[in-house]
Amino acid sequence: MPATPRPADQLRNVQIELGYIPSNPASVLYRCEGTIVLCTASLAASVPPWLAGKGKGWVTAEYNMLPGSTTPRKPRDRGGKIDGRTTEIQRLIGRSLRAVVDLVKLGERSITVDCDVLQADGGTRTAAITGGFIALAKAIQIAVPGSRIGDGPIRDSIAAISAGIVNDVAHLDLDYQLDSAADVDMNVVMTGSGKFVEIQGTGEEATFDDDQLADLLRLAKQGIRELTTKQLQSLS
Amino acid sequence: MPATPRPADQLRNVQIELGYIPSNPASVLYRCEGTIVLCTASLAASVPPWLAGKGKGWVTAEYNMLPGSTTPRKPRDRGGKIDGRTTEIQRLIGRSLRAVVDLVKLGERSITVDCDVLQADGGTRTAAITGGFIALAKAIQIAVPGSRIGDGPIRDSIAAISAGIVNDVAHLDLDYQLDSAADVDMNVVMTGSGKFVEIQGTGEEATFDDDQLADLLRLAKQGIRELTTKQLQSLS
Amino acid sequence: MPATPRPADQLRNVQIELGYIPSNPASVLYRCEGTIVLCTASLAASVPPWLAGKGKGWVTAEYNMLPGSTTPRKPRDRGGKIDGRTTEIQRLIGRSLRAVVDLVKLGERSITVDCDVLQADGGTRTAAITGGFIALAKAIQIAVPGSRIGDGPIRDSIAAISAGIVNDVAHLDLDYQLDSAADVDMNVVMTGSGKFVEIQGTGEEATFDDDQLADLLRLAKQGIRELTTKQLQSLS
Amino acid sequence: MPATPRPADQLRNVQIELGYIPSNPASVLYRCEGTIVLCTASLAASVPPWLAGKGKGWVTAEYNMLPGSTTPRKPRDRGGKIDGRTTEIQRLIGRSLRAVVDLVKLGERSITVDCDVLQADGGTRTAAITGGFIALAKAIQIAVPGSRIGDGPIRDSIAAISAGIVNDVAHLDLDYQLDSAADVDMNVVMTGSGKFVEIQGTGEEATFDDDQLADLLRLAKQGIRELTTKQLQSLS
Amino acid sequence: MPATPRPADQLRNVQIELGYIPSNPASVLYRCEGTIVLCTASLAASVPPWLAGKGKGWVTAEYNMLPGSTTPRKPRDRGGKIDGRTTEIQRLIGRSLRAVVDLVKLGERSITVDCDVLQADGGTRTAAITGGFIALAKAIQIAVPGSRIGDGPIRDSIAAISAGIVNDVAHLDLDYQLDSAADVDMNVVMTGSGKFVEIQGTGEEATFDDDQLADLLRLAKQGIRELTTKQLQSLS
Amino acid sequence: MPATPRPADQLRNVQIELGYIPSNPASVLYRCEGTIVLCTASLAASVPPWLAGKGKGWVTAEYNMLPGSTTPRKPRDRGGKIDGRTTEIQRLIGRSLRAVVDLVKLGERSITVDCDVLQADGGTRTAAITGGFIALAKAIQIAVPGSRIGDGPIRDSIAAISAGIVNDVAHLDLDYQLDSAADVDMNVVMTGSGKFVEIQGTGEEATFDDDQLADLLRLAKQGIRELTTKQLQSLS
Repeated sequence: MPATPRPADQLRNVQIELGYIPSNPASVLYRCEGTIVLCTASLAASVPPWLAGKGKGWVTAEYNMLPGSTTPRKPRDRGGKIDGRTTEIQRLIGRSLRAVVDLVKLGERSITVDCDVLQADGGTRTAAITGGFIALAKAIQIAVPGSRIGDGPIRDSIAAISAGIVNDVAHLDLDYQLDSAADVDMNVVMTGSGKFVEIQGTGEEATFDDDQLADLLRLAKQGIRELTTKQLQSLS
Repeated sequence: MPATPRPADQLRNVQIELGYIPSNPASVLYRCEGTIVLCTASLAASVPPWLAGKGKGWVTAEYNMLPGSTTPRKPRDRGGKIDGRTTEIQRLIGRSLRAVVDLVKLGERSITVDCDVLQADGGTRTAAITGGFIALAKAIQIAVPGSRIGDGPIRDSIAAISAGIVNDVAHLDLDYQLDSAADVDMNVVMTGSGKFVEIQGTGEEATFDDDQLADLLRLAKQGIRELTTKQLQSLS
Repeated sequence: MPATPRPADQLRNVQIELGYIPSNPASVLYRCEGTIVLCTASLAASVPPWLAGKGKGWVTAEYNMLPGSTTPRKPRDRGGKIDGRTTEIQRLIGRSLRAVVDLVKLGERSITVDCDVLQADGGTRTAAITGGFIALAKAIQIAVPGSRIGDGPIRDSIAAISAGIVNDVAHLDLDYQLDSAADVDMNVVMTGSGKFVEIQGTGEEATFDDDQLADLLRLAKQGIRELTTKQLQSLS
Repeated sequence: MPATPRPADQLRNVQIELGYIPSNPASVLYRCEGTIVLCTASLAASVPPWLAGKGKGWVTAEYNMLPGSTTPRKPRDRGGKIDGRTTEIQRLIGRSLRAVVDLVKLGERSITVDCDVLQADGGTRTAAITGGFIALAKAIQIAVPGSRIGDGPIRDSIAAISAGIVNDVAHLDLDYQLDSAADVDMNVVMTGSGKFVEIQGTGEEATFDDDQLADLLRLAKQGIRELTTKQLQSLS
Repeated sequence: MPATPRPADQLRNVQIELGYIPSNPASVLYRCEGTIVLCTASLAASVPPWLAGKGKGWVTAEYNMLPGSTTPRKPRDRGGKIDGRTTEIQRLIGRSLRAVVDLVKLGERSITVDCDVLQADGGTRTAAITGGFIALAKAIQIAVPGSRIGDGPIRDSIAAISAGIVNDVAHLDLDYQLDSAADVDMNVVMTGSGKFVEIQGTGEEATFDDDQLADLLRLAKQGIRELTTKQLQSLS
Repeated sequence: MPATPRPADQLRNVQIELGYIPSNPASVLYRCEGTIVLCTASLAASVPPWLAGKGKGWVTAEYNMLPGSTTPRKPRDRGGKIDGRTTEIQRLIGRSLRAVVDLVKLGERSITVDCDVLQADGGTRTAAITGGFIALAKAIQIAVPGSRIGDGPIRDSIAAISAGIVNDVAHLDLDYQLDSAADVDMNVVMTGSGKFVEIQGTGEEATFDDDQLADLLRLAKQGIRELTTKQLQSLS
């Protein structure tokens, strides 16, 4: 848990290690202080059956928290049913990543982006999107040599961040402690060029009004601009 | 499928039949033209184990599409894994309904709101929330005689509607045809007193900007005001 | 629960609403007082793999009780195992419906008859067969224009009813209250031309003799004759 | 498969080996020519949770075909869903055995009768009931010393047999070859004192009339009388 | 449970009944005193998908304990997950049997060896390998007439036995009572020509040294030589 | 994959990072060149139900390969059945760790050691045991202050290594390439004081003799001595 108070409009410190798994250059260890997510992109030269022969590719994501990533230990999803939160998160990651991929230009290939949380301290889903994009972009650059962001299968970059209302104050990038205390929790997914892809705002047994919504969106946009810069640096 | 064009800022025609299942007064057949959802609220005099002895109640929801509700037929969720979309929707319904229930005033009781879609033509999740609230309120009024909306366990009413960008035009209340053509799809859940509980906006392989977001929210608020009126009428 | 005593040899009042789901003409809301079953027949232009290329069609059925159909609420069959009673009932419905369909004349098509119980007050399986036949016949008449019962894929009509021994008296058409008190419970499935397709008689921790068997069969035959008349009216 | 023609009203040759599993005296190897079923009764000094504290015992049955019991090999029920036929059969066996047990006199004990088919040649469910009764009776005689059939927890004996219409002729005790050719298949479960417990008659894409029903019941009663004699001999 | 003390270096008495299931000559009832295993080999004229077109066959095994084989009764593996011990054992059996089969000479055929334990008194996995080999060899001799052990698809015989350290003494062929008291438990799988295929030695919350290892291996080899003789006798 | 040839009797280079997950000091990143395993030990102040009230603790392990740890990607174990190899490995890890823990001295506590493979290049199970012991020991030292190896709940250290016969030469510590080419594969688990806990030797469609067994055991002992030294260094 972070020890020093962080200003409400400031991101946590982000560290990005591309090529973390030696055998896979499209692997990223994404750390934003207490949240650590390992994102690996695996390419396959085929597409799911329902997409066969359409001249398009596919991008999907899986999200998982390792048992040791939380205290108390989180049991594995092995009983044959994935919990609802996991399902929601991995659908969100997949949708977000697909929003910036030109699947026709990708061609008949599938990329699976696995996001495994090694340590959880709030914001794992947005870390997974932001880090997952880097792994995805790297995998595409390897598969389609010469492709750059905005030119080729990767139409734009994409990043995500949370914001929330805690004690009537709008905060950017909620860690676990802030998230637990938040009345309203919002996740925003945006492209590098500043367009929304996904907005999910939820009152936790609470409600919010137009002004609060505006505050949260303003903070999120600012955070995503910073994250975009870091993403592009890590890929260059 | 609707035959005549509907103005972009107009709701579909809504019909609410409270007490549809004769043996359960807290049952609602909610129709908005081609979308028909049966919502029943079942009360139990106990709470889930993790809530035992805390002096609080619980409200949860389950969502299901009957196989005959779509063409082609939708297979049942019987293989031991519920599909991701279903999980997401029923979590949204439950969260939305709990946002207006004072669980302490409800006492150690559980209410399950089952939302079974008899015919699907877009907007089933928002219909489930809007209709589900009526069933829930009725069940609470039976369990806690004298309770009224705003006074007792039911703190406020809640309703939901969709809006979306179709061919660059913002539309209210998307039916299946509009939904299929939409670039951006937004679901908004609001209380009767005009506060947001949930905003979920998604670009379907597309993005949206601030102006489009403002348009969608404006339409949704207007629609929810109308739905709130119909909810209160059905309960009075 | 029924309020007035019904003579032991009299059916409950039956109401049949064909085309209940507007988008599917082969949908039937079948009510026999407190028991309400929604039967929809969905046609697919293919057959299961094991029947491919044999020039025959297939008819199958699924049975389900909605959670709100009983008090207390019945949990959904979502844990990956369907309960034994459900399995037995839907196998019975499928077998019964197939008994009157000429699968060769049906051609390489599949029809699934979904029987979803909206309210349960005894006799749901026999209601599902009787109502399911109407949905099935309608679906076949749409798929094979000009086909009539007895001429074309539909060889005969089929209907079902229960009978039982309650306090040593043979009763026709057991509602929940009678069924709970019955020592012997029998379900009979017969064609419109008066032939048996299925007889299932069970002593519930009790036994029965030849005379009792004869009484139950006599009542059941009489009930099925009446139901056959109603089926044909609804289809004409 | 039997080599010599058997008269239509004659049972297959039955051999009963009680105590087949040396460590469990309540184990029976039941052979009726090509059908071999191992029935073992296991006693536990407790009852299922829903029966606790009611001063009653419980009897249940499980049915299973070993993979090598048929050609081609039958895959095991290990995928988490038991096939419908198995479910139906084991419910029938349990219901039949309970019909002759006084659960109050049994006391708070549970008996599970496992019926594992070692070789299948038709009639496995009726063999399981007939053999399972012997194992059950033995287990009760051990648990409740001095108890005899008709006096104590075992109210009566119970046995079962099949009959069917093959090429318009009523046959008793169908082996696989007869069963495959049968238009109508009936299983009858009766007590030693000649009362019906269960009648299940099914037209396999066929129908049957009153005369055929009478023929089948007459044959079944005669067969069950013979089986009852053999059961009592094996237990004495 | 055995009544007389058996010398520490002596096998239990073994009885082998080939052709136990009349309809399948490749079926073996293998008894070593209180342990009784039914092994049946089923042949199919195809191979698993991942082996198709490679000109090779496949041999696999399944292991199962019947519920009545132990006291208290062992519940069936029907909940969709096979317990870990069962998985381990059937993988061991399959691996052991494949070690002596020339899969290319077997051709594009699959053989499944089912090992169902009728009574368990220790050593069921080694009994399953020893008995399973006999069933497998018989099935191959039927499928490939003229093939003998060492010449054709069957390269060698294979058998298995356990040994263990009980109260500091090395014992051969542990029954349940010895196994429960053992500090070290070893299973050895060897060919008829005296080569190891598998050694699995485990300290049960204990350890063992080189001398103890040597003792156990010596006993196991001696036991396997005796079992090999019995296997060849049963097949000749 | 390693680039330079390694002598047959030499271990891969091992790196141990204790406290790798900042929030859990009992976490270890264990690398032996291309094999990277994250081991975390989680403590709970309770024991499984079957051990309650016995004054003893429990140690268990779970093993998992992350999807990105191999090429091609390994699908997650989410379908409700864990693959057999995974089951076997995690049972081996748990058994090995328990062999050196005095469960009575541990007291009524449970420790779960999660071993998640980040990159797989052969020897993941032995790396999981060797690294898992370090995490376990650290967790125990935190829970039972002052406890040292050999004094307190940790009776001894434990480590594991593989050895195998490749092209008739005995090799220590097989990486993926060696493992794929090996005719015989052996995993040895030993305590720091040089006692065996587990020996698992398997001929992969091959066999081995006494001399080969002796060679493999000699190599394994030597390797485990080196690993023991590294374990103790990392913990001091």
